[in-house]
Amino acid sequence: MVKVAILGASGYTGGELLRLFSGHPKVEIAAATSEQSAGKPIDAVFPNLKGRLSLTLEPMDLDLLSEKADLFFLALPHTTAMPVASRLIEKKKKVIDLSADFRLKDPKTYESWYKTPHRYPDLLARACYGLPELHRSAIKSARLVANPGCYPTGALLGLLPLFAKSRVDPGSVIIDAKSGLSGAGRSPAQAYHFPEANEAVSAYNIGRHRHLPEIEQELSGLARKKILVTFSPHLVPINRGILSTIYARPKKTIDTAEAMELFKDYYKGEPFVHVLPPGELPNTRNVQGSNDCHIGLVVDRHADRKAATLVIVTAIDNLVKGAAGQAIQNMNLMMGYEETLGLTAPGLFP
Amino acid sequence: MVKVAILGASGYTGGELLRLFSGHPKVEIAAATSEQSAGKPIDAVFPNLKGRLSLTLEPMDLDLLSEKADLFFLALPHTTAMPVASRLIEKKKKVIDLSADFRLKDPKTYESWYKTPHRYPDLLARACYGLPELHRSAIKSARLVANPGCYPTGALLGLLPLFAKSRVDPGSVIIDAKSGLSGAGRSPAQAYHFPEANEAVSAYNIGRHRHLPEIEQELSGLARKKILVTFSPHLVPINRGILSTIYARPKKTIDTAEAMELFKDYYKGEPFVHVLPPGELPNTRNVQGSNDCHIGLVVDRHADRKAATLVIVTAIDNLVKGAAGQAIQNMNLMMGYEETLGLTAPGLFP
Amino acid sequence: MVKVAILGASGYTGGELLRLFSGHPKVEIAAATSEQSAGKPIDAVFPNLKGRLSLTLEPMDLDLLSEKADLFFLALPHTTAMPVASRLIEKKKKVIDLSADFRLKDPKTYESWYKTPHRYPDLLARACYGLPELHRSAIKSARLVANPGCYPTGALLGLLPLFAKSRVDPGSVIIDAKSGLSGAGRSPAQAYHFPEANEAVSAYNIGRHRHLPEIEQELSGLARKKILVTFSPHLVPINRGILSTIYARPKKTIDTAEAMELFKDYYKGEPFVHVLPPGELPNTRNVQGSNDCHIGLVVDRHADRKAATLVIVTAIDNLVKGAAGQAIQNMNLMMGYEETLGLTAPGLFP
Amino acid sequence: MVKVAILGASGYTGGELLRLFSGHPKVEIAAATSEQSAGKPIDAVFPNLKGRLSLTLEPMDLDLLSEKADLFFLALPHTTAMPVASRLIEKKKKVIDLSADFRLKDPKTYESWYKTPHRYPDLLARACYGLPELHRSAIKSARLVANPGCYPTGALLGLLPLFAKSRVDPGSVIIDAKSGLSGAGRSPAQAYHFPEANEAVSAYNIGRHRHLPEIEQELSGLARKKILVTFSPHLVPINRGILSTIYARPKKTIDTAEAMELFKDYYKGEPFVHVLPPGELPNTRNVQGSNDCHIGLVVDRHADRKAATLVIVTAIDNLVKGAAGQAIQNMNLMMGYEETLGLTAPGLFP
Repeated sequence: MVKVAILGASGYTGGELLRLFSGHPKVEIAAATSEQSAGKPIDAVFPNLKGRLSLTLEPMDLDLLSEKADLFFLALPHTTAMPVASRLIEKKKKVIDLSADFRLKDPKTYESWYKTPHRYPDLLARACYGLPELHRSAIKSARLVANPGCYPTGALLGLLPLFAKSRVDPGSVIIDAKSGLSGAGRSPAQAYHFPEANEAVSAYNIGRHRHLPEIEQELSGLARKKILVTFSPHLVPINRGILSTIYARPKKTIDTAEAMELFKDYYKGEPFVHVLPPGELPNTRNVQGSNDCHIGLVVDRHADRKAATLVIVTAIDNLVKGAAGQAIQNMNLMMGYEETLGLTAPGLFP
Repeated sequence: MVKVAILGASGYTGGELLRLFSGHPKVEIAAATSEQSAGKPIDAVFPNLKGRLSLTLEPMDLDLLSEKADLFFLALPHTTAMPVASRLIEKKKKVIDLSADFRLKDPKTYESWYKTPHRYPDLLARACYGLPELHRSAIKSARLVANPGCYPTGALLGLLPLFAKSRVDPGSVIIDAKSGLSGAGRSPAQAYHFPEANEAVSAYNIGRHRHLPEIEQELSGLARKKILVTFSPHLVPINRGILSTIYARPKKTIDTAEAMELFKDYYKGEPFVHVLPPGELPNTRNVQGSNDCHIGLVVDRHADRKAATLVIVTAIDNLVKGAAGQAIQNMNLMMGYEETLGLTAPGLFP
Repeated sequence: MVKVAILGASGYTGGELLRLFSGHPKVEIAAATSEQSAGKPIDAVFPNLKGRLSLTLEPMDLDLLSEKADLFFLALPHTTAMPVASRLIEKKKKVIDLSADFRLKDPKTYESWYKTPHRYPDLLARACYGLPELHRSAIKSARLVANPGCYPTGALLGLLPLFAKSRVDPGSVIIDAKSGLSGAGRSPAQAYHFPEANEAVSAYNIGRHRHLPEIEQELSGLARKKILVTFSPHLVPINRGILSTIYARPKKTIDTAEAMELFKDYYKGEPFVHVLPPGELPNTRNVQGSNDCHIGLVVDRHADRKAATLVIVTAIDNLVKGAAGQAIQNMNLMMGYEETLGLTAPGLFP
Repeated sequence: MVKVAILGASGYTGGELLRLFSGHPKVEIAAATSEQSAGKPIDAVFPNLKGRLSLTLEPMDLDLLSEKADLFFLALPHTTAMPVASRLIEKKKKVIDLSADFRLKDPKTYESWYKTPHRYPDLLARACYGLPELHRSAIKSARLVANPGCYPTGALLGLLPLFAKSRVDPGSVIIDAKSGLSGAGRSPAQAYHFPEANEAVSAYNIGRHRHLPEIEQELSGLARKKILVTFSPHLVPINRGILSTIYARPKKTIDTAEAMELFKDYYKGEPFVHVLPPGELPNTRNVQGSNDCHIGLVVDRHADRKAATLVIVTAIDNLVKGAAGQAIQNMNLMMGYEETLGLTAPGLFP
């Protein structure tokens, strides 16, 4: 049993960690913090936990918390997670940071996107990017895991096999992602006000979303050279889910069978990534509430078009595989547990 | 471990049973049948089960199935469940029927609402109405449980304490229920076509919905006289959930504190029924995916109005507490398992 | 041509007035004000008006505005509309107030519900409650019209024929109303944050919603005695629409044909109220974007139940018949225009 | 005044024509046909028209209809529109065909996508593709207009300026389109069943949707050589709207200002196409119910990426600019009316 604490537990990611922990046989929730809701019972903040979890939110006193817990999930805002992670690592705790503070390996890149210097470059150097399908062995021995962003998870899972085998022109990648509204967090704002977000589909931050450098960093690592991609996020009126439609030009001719083989081979044995049969394409509905990623493939090659386009579609639940579920998957790896522990409940249908 | 079979597994109720079984430690799924999808893998019908459950749908051969399973869940259409239940009971199997075929104790009432004679009145007499909060001990020893309808579950849970204590005028009851679309089943129809059901709220079948006699039967049993109620079902554009707003006139003055006490007392120890604190009212969102029922109470008594109106609001997930979850709760009781086994996962939020 | 000004034009009601004015042949929009968006072009606030309306929002300078416009629509927050209306009436302007400030004829009732004294009781006494189906002739000669709330409009239209003819026990009325989210206004808040309002149906403020005294006032006027009703508002995840399901006990036996006749007779000649044929019930979808009110009737009388219950269901668009459309209908009456002018465009389907 | 008939009026496109005609001062609806609803009043099929339009659906008797109407809108299924158009043209009627039967100029292309030979190649040769922004003058003198598909309208409006000026590599085009469910028509089917389409985002028919050849035909015409594009349609849970996110590689360096200029110049004077200011991106919500097309532009050029990607986002209402509205725009052109007649009502917000 590992004693865990969730810092910043009142947002959607915190709530999802609590929901998923309830089905995890080796987790004891030692504490959950919230600045604005300290003192409240957890079901005042997450009414779905009524009668299921007895826990009072507390303020974030790291000394006190360090006596209670051994592994910390940071669901804190960007830039505020940094110093907390640093102190906890000093105290020999394991940390899974769900903020962006330790995802970008180059402090200058961090600074240019988050408009503040990274104050812990040494710690940053030791952090491991927590995408198990790419960095599994490093995660196992990491003390600080930077849990990937939701968009990068959906995008990278659609591109790993192609980049690992150098099958596509790395500069040709376009990622058109459609996200549900929970990805925007729990704080109300005009754009997420029901009457304005409902019955609405929109693009935003094309080419300048903060998840872009994260995608480029991991792809660049695989390509062993600097890669730039086009990334277009969209909002769609669903609560959970990201559908990423990814376009890339193959370096040489590829057919559907070969592309399928490439993906199936790369993801063989992966417990959460499912490559759909030819002709089937993913639907966010099929992964809502689960840690699964569904992947579909199309080779779009008209008879007389010179360059085919490979279209890869991935679906994840942004709060599970895109956040809390992946964090628990990382925890399982860090603790030496079975990787799927507490994560095998199917999603809701419908 | 109990070996179970689901007959008619390709609808929403069947899918929900399968989803919930995946978290049940004492259930082995021996078989699942579907006439139209026989031969297909289960994830072709429920894509959320991909990689989670390996099972092929089969035709309904009762002889064969009887060798495989000991407890049967019938998720068959009304009138077709009857003969199947009869044969299975003959074969000494336990049966939980999720259709309406064994809910109405009076064969004549059944015939008048379902337009076909009840052909197994003897078996009907032995069936137990499977609302654990009302008939727990009878369920424990039943061989055939008639799982309640979704609307009756939400309505009855809001009225049991009042009828058990004779606190309201039994003829004053009005039930205004709002249901999500999964309650209408999985077969497409004009009224459930997305563009017509979305952005739409409507009333239907007021005073003539088939769940009405079921509600009246159970209330009449408690009141020891024939009770008639007004029941107004509505469709609201959500996937899951029923909110029942129930109005009743107290026989004598009652205040909020007293009403709260009455409900809390009646539901003391009930694992799935949660009476909310004064001032809080239920939201279907808070129970989606869970077997919980949330109940809120208001005594609407203007200073100078003679008769107060008691307003009780209940929220359930129609596919869980209103169908598959309650069926598993009944199974747990019938098998002597802990009543909450496999049913304690919190619902999704958001 | 009448020159109109909209004060507080940046909310949903203001936007709806602007949308509807664009189809009105006798309205010239002289000005539209917004404190927080003064100086912005109207399409920065209502992107649907891009290329359709050229107008710059301005601050609320009543002296200046009085030189520009002759009829004022006040879409200001409660309590702030009062002094503005007073000054405009002094300046001999006509005023249609869409706030609640002049709806409640008794200043004490106003104070008890809005927690502030009514400072213009004389003006209040001269204001006309703007429900044309009830007060048409008074509206025609009014200088200050208090435009009804959205809930009261839906509720009253379902009850007027019954109260006008004294056909129901006035103390038996229960109104169970389901409203779309635009009714909550344009300011973001947790309860209206998309992920929390979507896939959610909830009751709120049962027995203590501010629209309750407004309903009771008008019914009391018809009944010539003080009437109290039970009013239960609910939120449903649609943008527009209120479905009101209303329950009342007839004073003496009534059958469906007679009830239909009563309603059809009362609403004969009404351009916006449509009584549906027996067996049909309203759907908010069918009136979205239009000034229509659809009404359906059910007499719920089981064979052996002594007292029947009359169930009346009404559907309106809360922003049109429940706000801006009704305000324009009132304007038409006040100006001596044809009552339906600018209001005959059908709603969107789907 | 022109006398029009709508053939196949019971689907969403037919309903939208009727809705829009109600605001058109020069249209007299002479007849509306429906095979399955012949004899029914129009408001039985479109309840939003109750009290607004008095019309009885009739069977499609072309001889009879030809005596009543002069201009025909065909909202018939693909392949059945062909012979009807032919007979009406013989009878010297004007025809606007909203099916796909006269969109593809090459009969062989038609046959390969619609699996039936085109039986009226001569008539096909005389049909005009009804995209006013591209073929305005031809439409004015056409007797048979093939109204564009919804996806092609959204895609082409985003590409016309670039192809007209040869500014992009024509083989680089990728169109990622997100459509609301009304685009799938009014017939119920599993994929459009509310519980399965709600809370769901999915890709379908990538590279093999029937609207693909239509897009390629018009782009090929502009490029004066055969162009192939990648087209990925998606379903998103809204009733109305298509957001098309389009990617293309510029032939030579282009910056945002230049791209904006190009688009603004091309669409100068266009009444329905609005190019948004830099930094703004379209939202389907802002055009729902209107004939508008909103366009936003991003030049996605990382500092050190050689080839920039131009991202164009367009939003239309698939039933208006993508179908019925554009058909009326074409009618206005064919009749010599002002092009915007009956089409200037703003869309609904929210």
